[in-house]
Amino acid sequence: MLRSLAAACAALFATAVVADEGMWTFDNVPQAAIQKKYNITLDKPWLDKLQRSITRFESGCTGSFVSPDGLVLTNHHCAMSCLAELSSTSANYVDDGFHAGTRSQEKKCPTQILSVLVEMENVTAKVAAATAGLADAQANQARKQELSKLEAACTSSSKNSRGGPLACESVTLYQGGQYYLYKYRRYDDVRLVFAPHHAIGAFGGDPDNFNFPRWSLDFSLMRVYDKGKPARTPNHLSWRIEGPQEGEPTFIAGHPGSTSRLLTVEQLRFQRDVSVPSYLIRNSELRGRMIQYGKTGDEPARIVSDYLQSVENALKVYRGFQTALLDDGLFARKTVQERELRERVKTDPKLEAAVGEAWKDAADAQERYRQIYDRYLFLESGAGFNSKLFGYARQLVRGAAERGKSNEQRLREYAESNLPKIASSLLATTPLYPEFEQVTLSFSLDKLRETLGPDDSVVRKLLSTESPESLAAKLITQSKLGDPAVRKALWDGGAAAVAASNDPMIALARDIDGEARAVRKIYEDEVQAPVAAAQERIAKARFAVLGTNTYPDATFTLRLSYGAVAGWTEKGQPVEPFTQLSRLYERTTGKDPFRLPQVWLDARDKLDMSTPFCFVTTNDIVGGNSGSPLVDSQGRLVGLAFDGNKHSIAGSFWYDGEMNRTVAVHPAIIIAALRDVYGAQDLAKELLDAR
Amino acid sequence: MLRSLAAACAALFATAVVADEGMWTFDNVPQAAIQKKYNITLDKPWLDKLQRSITRFESGCTGSFVSPDGLVLTNHHCAMSCLAELSSTSANYVDDGFHAGTRSQEKKCPTQILSVLVEMENVTAKVAAATAGLADAQANQARKQELSKLEAACTSSSKNSRGGPLACESVTLYQGGQYYLYKYRRYDDVRLVFAPHHAIGAFGGDPDNFNFPRWSLDFSLMRVYDKGKPARTPNHLSWRIEGPQEGEPTFIAGHPGSTSRLLTVEQLRFQRDVSVPSYLIRNSELRGRMIQYGKTGDEPARIVSDYLQSVENALKVYRGFQTALLDDGLFARKTVQERELRERVKTDPKLEAAVGEAWKDAADAQERYRQIYDRYLFLESGAGFNSKLFGYARQLVRGAAERGKSNEQRLREYAESNLPKIASSLLATTPLYPEFEQVTLSFSLDKLRETLGPDDSVVRKLLSTESPESLAAKLITQSKLGDPAVRKALWDGGAAAVAASNDPMIALARDIDGEARAVRKIYEDEVQAPVAAAQERIAKARFAVLGTNTYPDATFTLRLSYGAVAGWTEKGQPVEPFTQLSRLYERTTGKDPFRLPQVWLDARDKLDMSTPFCFVTTNDIVGGNSGSPLVDSQGRLVGLAFDGNKHSIAGSFWYDGEMNRTVAVHPAIIIAALRDVYGAQDLAKELLDAR
Repeated sequence: MLRSLAAACAALFATAVVADEGMWTFDNVPQAAIQKKYNITLDKPWLDKLQRSITRFESGCTGSFVSPDGLVLTNHHCAMSCLAELSSTSANYVDDGFHAGTRSQEKKCPTQILSVLVEMENVTAKVAAATAGLADAQANQARKQELSKLEAACTSSSKNSRGGPLACESVTLYQGGQYYLYKYRRYDDVRLVFAPHHAIGAFGGDPDNFNFPRWSLDFSLMRVYDKGKPARTPNHLSWRIEGPQEGEPTFIAGHPGSTSRLLTVEQLRFQRDVSVPSYLIRNSELRGRMIQYGKTGDEPARIVSDYLQSVENALKVYRGFQTALLDDGLFARKTVQERELRERVKTDPKLEAAVGEAWKDAADAQERYRQIYDRYLFLESGAGFNSKLFGYARQLVRGAAERGKSNEQRLREYAESNLPKIASSLLATTPLYPEFEQVTLSFSLDKLRETLGPDDSVVRKLLSTESPESLAAKLITQSKLGDPAVRKALWDGGAAAVAASNDPMIALARDIDGEARAVRKIYEDEVQAPVAAAQERIAKARFAVLGTNTYPDATFTLRLSYGAVAGWTEKGQPVEPFTQLSRLYERTTGKDPFRLPQVWLDARDKLDMSTPFCFVTTNDIVGGNSGSPLVDSQGRLVGLAFDGNKHSIAGSFWYDGEMNRTVAVHPAIIIAALRDVYGAQDLAKELLDAR
Repeated sequence: MLRSLAAACAALFATAVVADEGMWTFDNVPQAAIQKKYNITLDKPWLDKLQRSITRFESGCTGSFVSPDGLVLTNHHCAMSCLAELSSTSANYVDDGFHAGTRSQEKKCPTQILSVLVEMENVTAKVAAATAGLADAQANQARKQELSKLEAACTSSSKNSRGGPLACESVTLYQGGQYYLYKYRRYDDVRLVFAPHHAIGAFGGDPDNFNFPRWSLDFSLMRVYDKGKPARTPNHLSWRIEGPQEGEPTFIAGHPGSTSRLLTVEQLRFQRDVSVPSYLIRNSELRGRMIQYGKTGDEPARIVSDYLQSVENALKVYRGFQTALLDDGLFARKTVQERELRERVKTDPKLEAAVGEAWKDAADAQERYRQIYDRYLFLESGAGFNSKLFGYARQLVRGAAERGKSNEQRLREYAESNLPKIASSLLATTPLYPEFEQVTLSFSLDKLRETLGPDDSVVRKLLSTESPESLAAKLITQSKLGDPAVRKALWDGGAAAVAASNDPMIALARDIDGEARAVRKIYEDEVQAPVAAAQERIAKARFAVLGTNTYPDATFTLRLSYGAVAGWTEKGQPVEPFTQLSRLYERTTGKDPFRLPQVWLDARDKLDMSTPFCFVTTNDIVGGNSGSPLVDSQGRLVGLAFDGNKHSIAGSFWYDGEMNRTVAVHPAIIIAALRDVYGAQDLAKELLDAR
């Protein structure tokens, strides 16, 4: 206990010297710490080139340009939704992999959008001006309006900049300590180039997930197109096929999704007591339903595979959260940090006045959140209506209503700058599986009734003469929203068309919209608003005490992490940093998820069994970083991040340099697979030629 | 926080005056408290008659004799396993209910055993003598040997007692503060007499479970037979059909299963951090698999129903545990209680010397338990092999090995006194559903691999060339243990027959037996033994400070609870103590679990809509009390306990008189159902005539 507390004290006041910690914004890279520890200076050209080589997958991953012709390297698991959407009963690209022999055979992913960050603009002062002097709920509204306004103005003013229009998104850093506009170049013509078999891309499956040693060939290749031709991408990474040495520094650029390191103790307690247990129990049941459904046939197995992989991955993450949150040591450390910060604030009367009762205000808001959490989760966040068809219906109903308002008055997700993304996903032709919809929708209606109770007003409205099973069947059978043309007519038709529709899923979305918006309003005004106001003040306190020598929580925006290749010690045993190909063959059972595809068995004699396969580094990353390149001090690609070890999951709350590790695919095994297993000489050449 | 802590202090030093708390042994009924609060004295004849009217269902419930001819009243959910075992594709007694028109039509339950407690003998001194001066692990062994010896001697000496031989079981009370021999009259010819439709017996299903107001007709009737004739049961309860008034005292006799009120803070933390989350996540997934399997057809739905109801019930209980354990207030209260007790001990040097480092010793053992928990759970406690066939195999393999040892050297569950129960369940003809076995066994093998990891020695042994799915299929298809004759041959053949068997399930049980026994040995020597020793010393401390004016944790042995009919206040709203029949009809949706059977719809006009249906009381009960009668001050039956409200689940850790309520079926609705819905005039008459 003592050692942990001492570490905590050090952490608060000297974040920058703690080994390899942090997901740093590109404008605030901790040069001094990197220089001191690794004797490397990352100059501006190095950073700029890396930044422009990185792509964000809007579906939640990272990728990097690896040739001048728009070729993008990412994980196999980041391509899963595209593989599933392109598959059918006659072609199973998930199981069998995909290889476009020529560029004309590259296949467009129905819903994939990639973005490249071009510019960041600090708008903190503008947001502060818009909210000055307002009460929490009003400030919360005014902030959103200002951000919508800034985004719209930015997008429209960027129309004529070099390289065409940019997409502008506001970003909140340091829990409201800073606001930025991030300006992206968007690519919406993204084509599948290569993916290995799922059995090798996800070798070890759920049992190996978040574990190491590891043998997952978790990579895929895509290509972005511009006006029907491969995009020109002069900023791209070159390959260092021999990879890094043990102890060598590695840098990871990517889009870590979300961390909770700056949350208050009471916010963490809310996660421990309310949101995390609720998530785990609900989704464990869903996992069971999906698995059992997948056993009813080959086609159900194919359909369920992508969804199941996501659910199982998320469950492992949340189980890790739970373990971390049940560690009373974590709460002790955070309590000490919080107390120290509050004491430092008290020594500065002006700061104290500005910060006020921020921690208490945030705590009170958590108490309010506990009261409304289930209704918010089930009615507004969609836990009660787990169905692609319902998702369409909600977007059509809400979209029609919101587009009738001025940009700034809309719900944020329907702001002008977000409409292209919504329209594109709504109108895309993606497969819909009614039988699987029945599984997820009847499940979520079951949970809706179980959680809110059979006598709740919405439950009575929906289920007074139906069971979750029968209602789901009726909705799915009768709804026509699976047809993109029907969706297009309703989207284009707007409020009048939606009001006139007798589609039962549209009717459902309409019927519950009032109660869903009502609980959202309570959430926004009585939870989100006071929390935002409190966090902004706590951020002020942190800046005052710590300066800017600190990094913001992850927000699925571009960050740089530094570290080095290193194993760790697990229960007294050393874990070596590299794995080799030979053990893959020893570890196969012949059955999923430890099965090897036939081409891998056939290629065994051609392959060098000492080829490095995966390795671990001390880089500080989280989900969203999937597909991020690891680069060396010269900016050359030396690995592909795809996972963390199990200790990395606690990284949501704190970084443990002793135990937390990034897991990466080695470049040598990618090239060997392309050349010697899959006969993709062209692609291997494109990668190795890229300079 | 302040109020709770103050209450905690009061609770430690004046347990007896806290309202209606406690599950009291019949030899230590808190007469003074009952007299003071309710002005009632429960004299010895009153207690003796009640004791002999109560039956224990060895499957985990309570019942009571309600006629001189061996008629037993219990819950519908306590009859579920019998109903399921007697059902087939041609007769679904779960869905359709059962009514034996004549005694000759009463159907024998394949595995049901009922017991009546005849005598209790305090053997604390004998156990203390057997363990005196021994180190923890040796004392733990010696204690078990002594208990096996005492049980065997008791059973054999009772052979010639009036009414035939008794079954003697040792009972540990006050965590080792007292040891008893409980002597039971056993009935193994138990026949099904009446059960309503599942739809009304469990009306509201899982959504209503642990909730109130309530409309579940959760009763059934069985009859015990002796030498082929209805048993003579002169000690039985008479009915007071009008039931109790609001505020009237009620007494519940039954067999509460298990509580954790005397656990140390570190033992509770183990539950919060380890066992409860693990249980919830694992069984939520199992729930999902069962539900989805049940959707594949009518027969799967029938097969799964009984198991699913148990799993869902247990999940609600564990979810309640989790909520209670995540309340930092509970830990604060328990910490204060523990500190106060420890401080009181310090004021008495002799006591202090006797108690020693008991709390620390128990805490250290919890730490060891954390290390081995998963292996113990999966290999020894069976979480890795969820299959009826495996259960048979384990009992055959272990039974053969253990019967070759002297009684006292055996694993406790194979002591001579337990063999008849084992043989009876092993040799009974009960249905086996291979498809459902496949669901549960493949699930548990999945979890075994997920939890212990693919590189664990047992996992490698079982799954190096198989998946959980394919291994389960092989075992279930090829094993012959579904045939009672095969099991009988192996049981009778003993060690030689088991060693010679090439049944794959027997082979599996043999193959893992070494590793399973090894982890059990660690558990017994390094967890159970020091915990038992520590608890015995803590019990000494509690007796010294509190006297015997306290009650032991529940151990599925006979207890008395006192209380009164009373509603409570939920989120500021009063909850009335009684429900009426009329609302049942308003609340039906026509779909499970809110569907009414046709006979109930048909009978609507015949029924008095103001008939009371369910009610709540302040009695302190837990699972195992299911089927317990509520009696008034004159010992007359005024209700049938079947549930608690959701606040009662925290009763595992403490009793909250404000919120914790027992939920009971009213006698009037039982008689109305028999007479006016089911035309069972004979049974209604037998009940009402009983005096």
